[in-house]
Amino acid sequence: MQTGESKIRNPKSKIAPAPLLVVGAVAFDSVRTPYGEAKNILGGAATYFAVTASWFTPVRVVAVVGDDLGEEHLRVFQERGIDTAGLVRSPGKTFRWSGEYSGNMNEARTLETQLNVFEQFSPALPASYLDTEFVFLGNIDPVLQLHVRRQLPRARLTGLDSMNYWIKGKPEELKKALAEIDILMINETEARLLSGISNLKKATEFIRKMGPPTVVIKRGEHGVMLFSEGGIFSAPAFPLDQVHDPTGAGDSFAGGFMGYLAKAGELSDTHLRRAVIYGSVMASYAVEEFGLARLLRLTPKEIEARYRAFKALTHFDV
Amino acid sequence: MQTGESKIRNPKSKIAPAPLLVVGAVAFDSVRTPYGEAKNILGGAATYFAVTASWFTPVRVVAVVGDDLGEEHLRVFQERGIDTAGLVRSPGKTFRWSGEYSGNMNEARTLETQLNVFEQFSPALPASYLDTEFVFLGNIDPVLQLHVRRQLPRARLTGLDSMNYWIKGKPEELKKALAEIDILMINETEARLLSGISNLKKATEFIRKMGPPTVVIKRGEHGVMLFSEGGIFSAPAFPLDQVHDPTGAGDSFAGGFMGYLAKAGELSDTHLRRAVIYGSVMASYAVEEFGLARLLRLTPKEIEARYRAFKALTHFDV
Repeated sequence: MQTGESKIRNPKSKIAPAPLLVVGAVAFDSVRTPYGEAKNILGGAATYFAVTASWFTPVRVVAVVGDDLGEEHLRVFQERGIDTAGLVRSPGKTFRWSGEYSGNMNEARTLETQLNVFEQFSPALPASYLDTEFVFLGNIDPVLQLHVRRQLPRARLTGLDSMNYWIKGKPEELKKALAEIDILMINETEARLLSGISNLKKATEFIRKMGPPTVVIKRGEHGVMLFSEGGIFSAPAFPLDQVHDPTGAGDSFAGGFMGYLAKAGELSDTHLRRAVIYGSVMASYAVEEFGLARLLRLTPKEIEARYRAFKALTHFDV
Repeated sequence: MQTGESKIRNPKSKIAPAPLLVVGAVAFDSVRTPYGEAKNILGGAATYFAVTASWFTPVRVVAVVGDDLGEEHLRVFQERGIDTAGLVRSPGKTFRWSGEYSGNMNEARTLETQLNVFEQFSPALPASYLDTEFVFLGNIDPVLQLHVRRQLPRARLTGLDSMNYWIKGKPEELKKALAEIDILMINETEARLLSGISNLKKATEFIRKMGPPTVVIKRGEHGVMLFSEGGIFSAPAFPLDQVHDPTGAGDSFAGGFMGYLAKAGELSDTHLRRAVIYGSVMASYAVEEFGLARLLRLTPKEIEARYRAFKALTHFDV
């Protein structure tokens, strides 16, 4: 820790960190794990991202919700200071997902997906968002991702999440989006599918030539790898006694990663590596309890303590 | 790197590092991978271990070989300064293994195992070995492991490798051996099987109570985790462009790990962590070519260069 400089957002600070825009899903999740069950709790990639990023920088959210999203849910965003001007309400029900985790809890088994209002999602940005410099394009149709990106002429750092469904279904559209972003976040299987190369080092070299100078490979319980101009950086996941609910781990990683970068304001190798660790810190807290519970009652002290614990976990002398 | 101190064995040094004894299999391997094929090449866990450890400290090997092991094979040991007084020749053929790797090359598919002379292996130690202080009990019957351990009253650091076969087949014998060793090296699945606990952190806590204060979990392409008094240390595998032959990666890790510790002569947390990295360095070189080829023509400079590359791979600022 550099003395006197906190990585965590200080609401009383007079130097405002840059706002970070996220577009993606706000949803209601029903989740079953060996540790219990939760029904119709507030979730969705954009929600997890926004809540975690809000610990580092002001967040603007773009999403569509139904008329079943009540005051109590909006309050979750408001209490974290998240700007909800871009939260569009449509008649109908909010996106709903239900799934269960078993065994080593590495992957969810989806029981049901109801797209509902999300099916017609066409993100329109409020005028107050148009000066955004830090952007995260959550895992949605690459056509919509590009549509959002092009409404933001002042964007100087854009991250993008995608998945097999779009890599297979809209490869040309995804390629166009990749050419206009700075950071791609995907998992190992997706990197292999996107590049057609099985060796991860070669696959990410190939992908970086498609556009994004930085590629972040999420490996779940095996941590994260960062491929960028500064070389390769590898970070483990934090070993936990209990993982109660893995839902939102990847989105919480992305929120911590992008939130820290927006706070830092620059993209040096040093900051990118720190961002990977802050992302991993947030993901490790996210899975300790069901839904957003643990993320909502974090403290800056806890975030810094786990960052230092990551150092203790990985340090060796040369 | 502490200035002026080399971690690699210097044959001209007057301070002799402590000899390290390994007991296990010397074998002939036939291996097929997507990169090619090798037939009846010198291999076996004890061979890989001895060759890698010999880069750090003098090595003594205990194994049984058949009359098909010729001068050219013995020379491999001799040229690395490995003491072969404990290499017993029995009438018959040497242990033979053939297997192939495909896909992500994480696991070998065994095509054939011929135990041959290994079937009657009952390790008897030459008198010149009885003062050994550093010991590695390779993956053999725990009854034999304990038999070797008990012939070494001056042993002050004993590592042990095991596998599902012994955990399931000789649990009581393995427990007895575990009570008399310092370091256990197994993989994740084996740790879960041995402890009956699925969470890795809890599983290793349980195993440490069975005897070994230090447990090393080998995770293949996902690296290594060390659980010891000093807490948890996590190290990634080195990202390579090409893995030509994964055979012997785990044994090369063990050789580098134990070899470095024998050279260091003490078991502090600092040395244990360094040992994990040296083990990982040796494993990363081992898989670059078929069989022992890359390990035999290493240089101390290359070993140190990759150690530093591991630092670059994992370092982040606090």
